This record gives sequence, C-alpha cells and structure tokens, in this order.
Amino acid sequence: MGMKNIYIIGIGLIGGSFALNIKKLHPKATIYGIDNNSVHLEEALSLNIIDVKAEINDIENADLVVLAIPVDSSVTELPKILDSISDNTLVIDVGSTKTDICNIVANHPKRRNFLATHPISGTEFSGPQAAFLELFQKKTNIICEVEKTAFKLQEKALELFLGMGLRIRYMNPKAHDKHIAYVSHLSHISSFMLGKTVIEKEKNERDIFDMAGSGFESTVRLAKSSPEMWTPIFKQNKDNVIETLEEYINNLNEFKIMMEKDDFEAVFNEMKSTNHIKQILKGIV
Amino acid sequence: MGMKNIYIIGIGLIGGSFALNIKKLHPKATIYGIDNNSVHLEEALSLNIIDVKAEINDIENADLVVLAIPVDSSVTELPKILDSISDNTLVIDVGSTKTDICNIVANHPKRRNFLATHPISGTEFSGPQAAFLELFQKKTNIICEVEKTAFKLQEKALELFLGMGLRIRYMNPKAHDKHIAYVSHLSHISSFMLGKTVIEKEKNERDIFDMAGSGFESTVRLAKSSPEMWTPIFKQNKDNVIETLEEYINNLNEFKIMMEKDDFEAVFNEMKSTNHIKQILKGIV
Repeated sequence: MGMKNIYIIGIGLIGGSFALNIKKLHPKATIYGIDNNSVHLEEALSLNIIDVKAEINDIENADLVVLAIPVDSSVTELPKILDSISDNTLVIDVGSTKTDICNIVANHPKRRNFLATHPISGTEFSGPQAAFLELFQKKTNIICEVEKTAFKLQEKALELFLGMGLRIRYMNPKAHDKHIAYVSHLSHISSFMLGKTVIEKEKNERDIFDMAGSGFESTVRLAKSSPEMWTPIFKQNKDNVIETLEEYINNLNEFKIMMEKDDFEAVFNEMKSTNHIKQILKGIV
Repeated sequence: MGMKNIYIIGIGLIGGSFALNIKKLHPKATIYGIDNNSVHLEEALSLNIIDVKAEINDIENADLVVLAIPVDSSVTELPKILDSISDNTLVIDVGSTKTDICNIVANHPKRRNFLATHPISGTEFSGPQAAFLELFQKKTNIICEVEKTAFKLQEKALELFLGMGLRIRYMNPKAHDKHIAYVSHLSHISSFMLGKTVIEKEKNERDIFDMAGSGFESTVRLAKSSPEMWTPIFKQNKDNVIETLEEYINNLNEFKIMMEKDDFEAVFNEMKSTNHIKQILKGIV
C-alpha cells in the first residue's frame, strides 16, 4: 500500500503536525500542501513541513489526503475530494465534529475511501508555525463509522495513527458529538466567557493581570483559540453545545444561590463531591 | 534584625514552601512547625520542611511568624498571636482575602507587628508534600496596608520576599478582594462547576474521559483544589464573588442566546474580541 503522494489540505496546527509525522514515518513520501492562506503555505514550505505547494485539482494521484480545515469547509470540500481521487486513495478528516461530515458522504460512491477521525489533541495556537512532531503522542484518536471504510484503507490509517503515537477508540458520530460537547466544546466556551468577564471588568486596570497567577492563566488558556476554527464547530454541534451550556449555567446559578443563602456547608459539599475529578483525570494526564 | 526562631503556622503548600525558602535563606534559623493536623506535622518533619514541632503557646521567642491556615481560622488566631509575641516579632499572613484580617486587628496594640500579604502562587495540590522551593519564583505578592506595619519589620519582610523571588505590589484590602475575585476566585468556581457538569453527565461512562484531551484538563485543573481552604475564602469574599459570578453567568447566557438565534457572526465576534487575552496574559506567564 503506497505512501508516496501525500496531500495535506489545511496546513495548520493539526495538518502541519500530520505532515511532520508522515514525513518521519515515510521519508521518501512527497508532502503536497494545499491551503487557501498563501502566507501559511509559504511558511509551511520554508519550515519544511511540506515539500511542494499544490492545488485541490492535483489530488488524483494521492495515496493519502488529510483534510484539516474548519469543519464547515470540510463538509463542502469532502464530496468534491472523493469525486477526484483514485480507488486506492485514503481520505481522512480530522475535524472536531463528526455527524455532518459522515452524513454528507453517506451515499457517496467513494464512501469506502473515507475515514472519519478526530485526534483529540491540540493547543491554543494555530497555523503551521504551531505544528510539532509530538502533538499526537499518547493522545486519543476517535474513529467513527469504521465499518464503512475499505478494510485495506483502515489498515493503512491504523498503521499511520499508531506510528504517530495515537491511541484508537471507536464511536458512532452522534455519540462522539454529544460527549465531545462536554469534554471539549464546553471548556472552550467557559474559558472564552471567563476571559471576557475579567477583561470587561478590568479593562481600565490592565496591570491588574499581575494578580492573575497560574490559576487564571490555566482556566483562560483556551480563550486564545482560533474563532475561525471554533465558530463552525459550535454551529455544527449547536444542539449538544446548548445543552451542555444550560447544565453548566444551572450549576453556576445553584452555586451562587448557596452563597446568597450563606449555605457554605453546601458550597463545601459541592466542591468536595467534584474533587474526585483528581482520580478521573489521572488517566488522561 | 534576627531571623533565628521562625514559626510556621499551617504547614501546607504555602506554609511549607515558605519554610523551605526561609531555611535556604537563613540556614542557621530553626523552623518551628505548628499544625492542627498531626499527620501533616509528622510529614513536614520527616520531609525536613520543619526542624521542630511546636505549639501555639511557644511563639513568644519568635522572630517571624508565618500564618498560613484557612482564612477563617486566620481571623480567629491572629489577634491571639499578636497578644503573645514580643515587640520585635514580625507576623505575616498569606491568606487569599485581606479585608477581614486587616479589620480584625485594626485597633490591636501590636498592629505594627503585622503585615498582611497575599503571595499569588499556588497549585491545585495541598499539604506539606505539595510544598516546593520554587513556588514563589516571579510570582506577585500583594501587600496591604503597608503603612500600618513598623518600618523595620517592613524591611525584614521585603528582604525575605525578594529572596524568595516574589515581586511586590501594594494595594488596599478592599481593592485586593474585589480584583482577586475576578482573577482567582471566579476561575476556581468556573472550574469546579465545569467539573461537576461533566461528571454528572458522564458518570456512567467513565472511560469517556479518554476524550478529554488537554483542553478539559487545564480548565478543570482548579477543581482539584481543597474545599477546606476555598469555602472560607468564598465566605469572606461573598459579595465580590457573587458579583463576578453574576457577570460570568450573564455572559454565558448571552453566548447561549446567540447560538439559539443562529447568530454565529456574533459568536465569532465574542471569541475574537476575547482573543487579545493572548497579549494580556503574555505578561504573567
């Protein structure tokens, strides 16, 4: 199974880090980079993340296509990509939502060439200069609807993912989107709104951020994330995200009411019962 | 100005880290440890964080007393401590709230022996085994009502803090408590409630936390914090904390409404306008 011509569509943090890993695992492969952002494309070339700049029409000779663009564009582009490839090409997407992308190609004649994945790894930074080889080490890669992908292409993908250090889990797209709303999307909104609340209050006292210490820094870290990437994710996963937000807001309101009633025993118990997150998180650190 | 007999009351993360720093700066000093928790006291002794176990009644020969216990206990203990010390003893507290502790000793005859401080440094861990020498490096120490402390004792404290790597800022207690509610207390509540929301939802699917990745981990890190320490902080800073919570909840509600209305341009703008937190935070990392 050849790994000669590799096309990375979207040379950002994830796409760029895929490119670095593929180059390491397959030194003789040619990495073709495709990106709407010509500055990113030049950066990726000068950083040796890609070997050659390419266009979307060039992909007919691809052995592997990695689609790493915002999730709304992925849904638009994936059918066209499948239209253009050969029978032996593996196309994977790496987006943070999985229902819409799986639906859009459900009846495509080349559905078996596509594998829907979500490597749960990222930083708050974006663009090719944020890419690095170790990004996927010991991270989880969710694969959806694996049974719809040709067996030989599954094997090829699995070999690549394991070579990159990813752990594999299988899940259906609806379950993925529901759970990821809790463990990822909600964290991003809570972080953005925390940043907003503090910036609004302290806008006239910039040096107050001297006080922020490490606690604030870690809770607002995700507020540095790219709005270009996250807006389409929230749009595609709207119902699940709204549900998590409602539950989160309710919990915050209940905490506030306990404080207003001076029921600090309840405040204590709320924190105590959440404390066992220590044990839960041990597995993912 | 002697630094021979040092009493640390509360040998936890902060008290223990103070002890380690003082021992390094003053190798000939004797570090006396006082703690209600006899297990912690034995641990501190076996970890060489303290030299000797002591009782609260022993402090009359103290050159320095560091009060590092929950903020409600500090308010109860500080007047008694000031009653027992000599004229040359420096007493500092390191609590996360400053109004109540300054008020309680406002008219104490030994007010000039006390310095109210808040080193903004911590981790989500607690107890003597969490203490480490570098905890205070390049962190900010807020000093309140510095003018009420005897000049020679101010000098002694400043020399210690600078030796520990702390940067000093001066602030009045009310301003401290108001700002710290935004940049620290709110982060802790948002983290605890985020942890609660996700645990409630996913309690029957523990292995879903494989999906949590690094984003969730950093936003819920503070939910590992000690409820014993944080409950009295929220109680003492109730009004400020409720105000920050209200603003935070309002911002979350507005975000939810934008999503419900499918106004994703507004969602994008909300995130974009908070993105400059990157620049703000550069100063504190």
